[in-house]
Amino acid sequence: MEKLKHAIQDDYDDSYSWCYGCGRLNEDGLHLRTGWDEDNEGNTITIYEPRKEHKAIPGFIYGGLLASLIDCHGTGSASIFLHRKNGYEPGDGKDAPRFVTASLKVNFLRPTPEGVPLKAIGVVEEIHPKKFRVTTEVYADGKVVVTGVVTAVVMPDTFIEDNK
Amino acid sequence: MEKLKHAIQDDYDDSYSWCYGCGRLNEDGLHLRTGWDEDNEGNTITIYEPRKEHKAIPGFIYGGLLASLIDCHGTGSASIFLHRKNGYEPGDGKDAPRFVTASLKVNFLRPTPEGVPLKAIGVVEEIHPKKFRVTTEVYADGKVVVTGVVTAVVMPDTFIEDNK
Repeated sequence: MEKLKHAIQDDYDDSYSWCYGCGRLNEDGLHLRTGWDEDNEGNTITIYEPRKEHKAIPGFIYGGLLASLIDCHGTGSASIFLHRKNGYEPGDGKDAPRFVTASLKVNFLRPTPEGVPLKAIGVVEEIHPKKFRVTTEVYADGKVVVTGVVTAVVMPDTFIEDNK
Repeated sequence: MEKLKHAIQDDYDDSYSWCYGCGRLNEDGLHLRTGWDEDNEGNTITIYEPRKEHKAIPGFIYGGLLASLIDCHGTGSASIFLHRKNGYEPGDGKDAPRFVTASLKVNFLRPTPEGVPLKAIGVVEEIHPKKFRVTTEVYADGKVVVTGVVTAVVMPDTFIEDNK
């Protein structure tokens, strides 16, 4: 399976790298990784091949897994976009900004087949300096199976303390 | 943790019981179970305590897991609603109708704490005899942390064959 050399999640600070979807330190997690799409300038990409248990019914992928892919692809895409705006690229060794999801919308256009890698391709728009909209298409076997929109917000420094 | 006696997923036909979110036959799955809420006539309920790995950052639950909860709670709520309309209740020993998700919207209102059971409470509306809208509020520690809307459609008998 195609693998990104540099993913933005590789540059999240350790304390923000425990996400079940995309945290590199979460042993049981999905380890979703988001980078720039080399084939489409300015687009972002996350490639993931679901595990055998991630089915809805035999032969087809579970919607919640697809929602998870769109969620972390959304926060990762917002992060890589803002990181570039700040003058950095994944792999530069500089901590990338960490986002949280404010809202998530997923449209299931057709059943997603098992046994193939899924490619989420995203486009990022800035709504506000700390708020970004990421529109994503998920491809399986070359067809768009699912689309999604994430509104992602920069995680405040006080996120953990404020919400205890 | 509170446990439902009768869940609609217990009455899905075996061939539709492999869902990662709510399939009783998926060994690695979440085993989400949806029933009527005895405290709120006509509302549906799914109770789930996330696993330790289901975090976003330490202390808080992953958004994709919350989306998964809303997804299966949505299809389960549509099923239990239509099952009652057809004259049956969970536990009657009659196969329940199986739904697929057409769309899913999730609003993350506040961070969801780890270590407590989550309660998804749903209200079902019929849009069309085969299409239902399920509006859900997820509670943690008595507060609404996430809301969601699922549009669920009766799975066609030919779903598997049509999509091969």
